[in-house]
Amino acid sequence: MNGADSLCDTLLANDVDVCFANPGTSEMHFVAALDRKPKMRCVLGLFEGVVTGAADGYARMADKPAATLLHLGPGLGNGLANLHNAKRARTPMVNIVGDHATYHVQYDAPLTSDVEGVARPMSHWVKRTTKAADLSADAAEAVGVARRSPGNIATLILPADAAWTDLPENTAPVLAKSEALAQTSADAVRAAVAAIRSGEVTTLMLGGSALRERALNAAGRIARATGVRLVSETSNRRIERGGSRTPVDRLPYPIDLAVAKLKDVRHLVLVGAKAPVGFFAYPGKPSLLAPPDCKQVVLGTPEQDLAHALEWLADELGIAQDAPRLAAAPANYEVPQSGKLTGAAVNILVAHHLPEQAIVCDESITQGREFPLYSVNSAPHDWLMLTGGAIGIGLPLATGAAVACPDRKVVTLQADGSGMYTLQALWTQARENLDCLTVILANRSYATLHGEMKNVGVQEPGRNARRMLDLEEPYLDWTHLARGMGVEAVSVDTVEGFARALQEGLKRRGPFLIEAVI
Amino acid sequence: MNGADSLCDTLLANDVDVCFANPGTSEMHFVAALDRKPKMRCVLGLFEGVVTGAADGYARMADKPAATLLHLGPGLGNGLANLHNAKRARTPMVNIVGDHATYHVQYDAPLTSDVEGVARPMSHWVKRTTKAADLSADAAEAVGVARRSPGNIATLILPADAAWTDLPENTAPVLAKSEALAQTSADAVRAAVAAIRSGEVTTLMLGGSALRERALNAAGRIARATGVRLVSETSNRRIERGGSRTPVDRLPYPIDLAVAKLKDVRHLVLVGAKAPVGFFAYPGKPSLLAPPDCKQVVLGTPEQDLAHALEWLADELGIAQDAPRLAAAPANYEVPQSGKLTGAAVNILVAHHLPEQAIVCDESITQGREFPLYSVNSAPHDWLMLTGGAIGIGLPLATGAAVACPDRKVVTLQADGSGMYTLQALWTQARENLDCLTVILANRSYATLHGEMKNVGVQEPGRNARRMLDLEEPYLDWTHLARGMGVEAVSVDTVEGFARALQEGLKRRGPFLIEAVI
Repeated sequence: MNGADSLCDTLLANDVDVCFANPGTSEMHFVAALDRKPKMRCVLGLFEGVVTGAADGYARMADKPAATLLHLGPGLGNGLANLHNAKRARTPMVNIVGDHATYHVQYDAPLTSDVEGVARPMSHWVKRTTKAADLSADAAEAVGVARRSPGNIATLILPADAAWTDLPENTAPVLAKSEALAQTSADAVRAAVAAIRSGEVTTLMLGGSALRERALNAAGRIARATGVRLVSETSNRRIERGGSRTPVDRLPYPIDLAVAKLKDVRHLVLVGAKAPVGFFAYPGKPSLLAPPDCKQVVLGTPEQDLAHALEWLADELGIAQDAPRLAAAPANYEVPQSGKLTGAAVNILVAHHLPEQAIVCDESITQGREFPLYSVNSAPHDWLMLTGGAIGIGLPLATGAAVACPDRKVVTLQADGSGMYTLQALWTQARENLDCLTVILANRSYATLHGEMKNVGVQEPGRNARRMLDLEEPYLDWTHLARGMGVEAVSVDTVEGFARALQEGLKRRGPFLIEAVI
Repeated sequence: MNGADSLCDTLLANDVDVCFANPGTSEMHFVAALDRKPKMRCVLGLFEGVVTGAADGYARMADKPAATLLHLGPGLGNGLANLHNAKRARTPMVNIVGDHATYHVQYDAPLTSDVEGVARPMSHWVKRTTKAADLSADAAEAVGVARRSPGNIATLILPADAAWTDLPENTAPVLAKSEALAQTSADAVRAAVAAIRSGEVTTLMLGGSALRERALNAAGRIARATGVRLVSETSNRRIERGGSRTPVDRLPYPIDLAVAKLKDVRHLVLVGAKAPVGFFAYPGKPSLLAPPDCKQVVLGTPEQDLAHALEWLADELGIAQDAPRLAAAPANYEVPQSGKLTGAAVNILVAHHLPEQAIVCDESITQGREFPLYSVNSAPHDWLMLTGGAIGIGLPLATGAAVACPDRKVVTLQADGSGMYTLQALWTQARENLDCLTVILANRSYATLHGEMKNVGVQEPGRNARRMLDLEEPYLDWTHLARGMGVEAVSVDTVEGFARALQEGLKRRGPFLIEAVI
């Protein structure tokens, strides 16, 4: 056996058994080792942004890290945007990045680059193994770091000679350390109780694991009993919602709406969330979204056991464990029947037909902002979002989620502009026959940016601006793009057509794409 | 006017008048400024790898930098792989990377990242402007650095508030400094003369600007008069070749062939080239490709005036300015007429039909390695290559080259696996109606890696290896992919079919794609 075998054995021994990969020459010994370990499921992405985005989607649903396999600095660079999103989501991930043999780096061959430098901005932990004998310990450390609550991006740089050097047969894999989840403090709970009992407007701001069902149940009891509001951050890793689950308002992306939502809040109780800040800065508008006189209390940090913190808070407030929870008001919509297709019609129809235990991967940007309103009473589902604002996550995220949950339908709401960033994910969906239904919301522009142009005072964009904001001349044809990668697809521009295609897509198994021209 | 106007004015005043762009919210004031400057040609790429690769192709042909416009750390990250290639090519480029407003960074909004950290590994120069009044000087410095021989990647980080802050009307743009090209020394020329006159086997190793016509003319006279060999590096920015131009052997990529080519060389005269090193390291094979006892002499560095250095060397050797030059032996091939299409047939037919002044963008990887042999007597053309080994350059490079040279036919030899990395470039070719003929060499595998698997001793790859190296189940259909982005396309798998499609593609103007199934 060699270093690469030891690395594979260590990943498997630590329950990392899916590897999203796009290998190159310097990783060939690792590929050969993976070839000797059929327990490792290797999933090829035809671009590294697919690889890292899929590893993110996988871990959000599997609650454990996948490995990625990337090729030197440029391969890692290609995966960086979705690593940024995963880092913001606090997704656990173990990146294995091949590099030149240790003695070859000095010669500055064409593919040489500062791999650590590329890794560091989007990783919580970076290490370079220097010899085969260290690989198991280093890989175990990477897995341990990745799994540490609430999740971390661990990047291990693997020189080719560390992979190919022989080791004693049956070198035992090192096991990663597990750390108990940290608990919040009695002081923090007392401070939250005081805020809630102040009689002033109080909001629980929920993020991270506070948006999973058990934590939400406790938050829902607190909200029902005390009248506090439940608000989530704008960008969230995973919200368990629908059915009888506790509804949470999402802080809006547009800055004026976000400020308006928080304007009368006097106490903000942060539960795995950060004090809300503007996604961007705008001249004359605040960076901090809560009112200046709003008091902030941290009930629990993202690292802590937030379900326990909320249950403790409910106990301190004297709320019984079986007390009723906040329930969602029925979503207020009529199911559209016919006519020209609109973004609202797409959102309503998807919400209406959403199957039990669907996983919704949401990179719908402008056109999907109302989806959460319509889907509050949909069948129970998970809602995964773009977390770091780096577009191009939707299709990869869905790919990884489907690998993690083969028995659940994955429905992707994908804006066309951002979908183009990582469209190669469709091929992996076809290759692995993943049960992914993709809805492309084809408004044929970077619509967010049209809004932002107005925000900076340009009412009538000229040629240069239009050439940079509009996706026309020519239009993209997503049915061709999908078929080019082996995914069946239809294009619709009427409500009837979309309703039919949606129901057809939900019925079948395997990947299917609907281009919804709106 | 504001900072963004001043930045645009400065770029234009310094003859940077093409901007390849994929903007986001933080760049809206810059987009608004570009909208007020119709002299700036803005070319949208639907992914940042297209943007940076196109800027590379543009500068290689225009001999001056383009600007790019990128959105924060993740947008820059997406462009990093082709920046790596451009850095290795020593292409001049000015990247404008938007970032949050200076006062907003501290709040760690979702899109916040260490932009300098992302930029540094793939840039020669990185600077963050802190206020609007500095923008013109900073941009002029960026242009100056980018243009400094042999070319540099200059990355200027543009905080949103530096862009939007007002400046006095008619703030004058700063002009970039120009530096005279450095000349080689008499000592260097004398050392090269001594090597050539040693009577031992001597090779001129040419790189960078030594591969342009004037420098090659001098090298060709030297080779003809003295019998020295002319060899280029494996990866080159731009070679002017074909017709009566001086032919240069390219150092092969496979390490055994490269070592064999250099094995009897006793003197290596480096002219804008580095001492040759293995693209990768392999167990038991050398990193340095020249024999250990081979003496190396630097006639000129990449920074220097290499045409002058070679002409000086010819003078010192007593070779007349009108002395005959090395001529290419006629390429040894028969034009195939029919039968199943092969990579060789594609290379021969393209070489045979190559139009006058074509620009060949070559990311053909395994299937195109013989193209240079067949095309040595083709009509005069420029040959642009993948320089840094980061795949995904071909389609963007062609896009930029076509923007720079609207009157020349751009022929791209594109492997399918690497083509998938940045296929979005096809949309830009359609949008700008660029005269780009793309030949996809569809061998439906990462064929390089199949070879490398054999090199590491795996003769019969198992399931995991095949799943990572083969592009099948499903096959890609490039005609659908191209049509999805507005580019007409055909698929052929016979010699007759390819010959017909090629001639049709060469005749028409505008983008066209041939999927050559081999």
